Amino acid sequence: MNHYPGPLLKLINSLSTLPGIGKKTAERLALHILHAPDSQASTLAADIVGLKQSIKLCRVCFALSDRDICSICSDPARDQSIICVVENPADMAAIEKSHAFSGSYHILGGALSPMEGICPDDIRIQELFKRADTGKVKEIILATKTNVEGEATASYILDKLKIKKIKITRIASGIPMGGDLQYIDQLTMLLC
Amino acid sequence: MNHYPGPLLKLINSLSTLPGIGKKTAERLALHILHAPDSQASTLAADIVGLKQSIKLCRVCFALSDRDICSICSDPARDQSIICVVENPADMAAIEKSHAFSGSYHILGGALSPMEGICPDDIRIQELFKRADTGKVKEIILATKTNVEGEATASYILDKLKIKKIKITRIASGIPMGGDLQYIDQLTMLLC
Repeated sequence: MNHYPGPLLKLINSLSTLPGIGKKTAERLALHILHAPDSQASTLAADIVGLKQSIKLCRVCFALSDRDICSICSDPARDQSIICVVENPADMAAIEKSHAFSGSYHILGGALSPMEGICPDDIRIQELFKRADTGKVKEIILATKTNVEGEATASYILDKLKIKKIKITRIASGIPMGGDLQYIDQLTMLLC
Repeated sequence: MNHYPGPLLKLINSLSTLPGIGKKTAERLALHILHAPDSQASTLAADIVGLKQSIKLCRVCFALSDRDICSICSDPARDQSIICVVENPADMAAIEKSHAFSGSYHILGGALSPMEGICPDDIRIQELFKRADTGKVKEIILATKTNVEGEATASYILDKLKIKKIKITRIASGIPMGGDLQYIDQLTMLLC
């Protein structure tokens, strides 16, 4: 690809470091950016820089926010006595999209994984226990992923919190809406 | 998607204006950029700005370049008496990838299209004629696309240049290597 001038090659290389973007797609995107109006390219560049500068984590739930306390934790209409524990901001976004939950969140920032050396101190489990100790929490919903690490994390949290007077539930496992029984794996079927 | 903070939403919107990037992919890319090291994000932003500022068109062949004369036009090892006429820089890149051509290029910047109101004066045909008039050009290879607009453009150029003592050829049409005769369209077969 050395027939392209240096600055174009640099952008193609930068874009191809993004997930799911190969050399071919990066080339197409870079050529699009080159021919796009100056304003579109400068907006994109400014948005990338702006994102890194202005996004911080909510002091309460560790969600992505541009303020100290995120919009959910500071919303009086949301039930702050119910905490839904998720692994990362994308999981929280997926739940929010459903508009089915009106409580608050706690973003762990990962899941326990002895294989990858991720211990309870590496994710925000202690911060969850502190929130549970305030006496304002009535229910904790464990919505960590349904894989080995997510289940281990949920199990660890349940084990530590079961002595407290807090209702602890796990997000339901089963057949997704529209799913066909024929294609459901045995492990899910066992849980149904 | 309003559960994400403003700066993140802005980047998702900016990214989803790129071709082939939908809201879902844009969300994934924006979250990746957010969690990537600061240096990676700032490099990407700087490369976007750098591209728009430093890329210009070669004064001779109108290829993308960071100098007044592109690397091919200024390369004494390339045969400047053979000009390959292409529609856009991506077509030129495709030919360069093959390493099969050692002449120079002329990038038209589009193809004639009465339907879209693109006339000969809207693309760089006059500039090609000027190059042909210098007396230094022995052969012109018309490598415009093999669609209606590309064929019309090639035909127009051939018509205007045939009175000059220049060999004018068209890039070969036929069955691509590894192509199956069963799947070749009738128009291509007629040309074989």
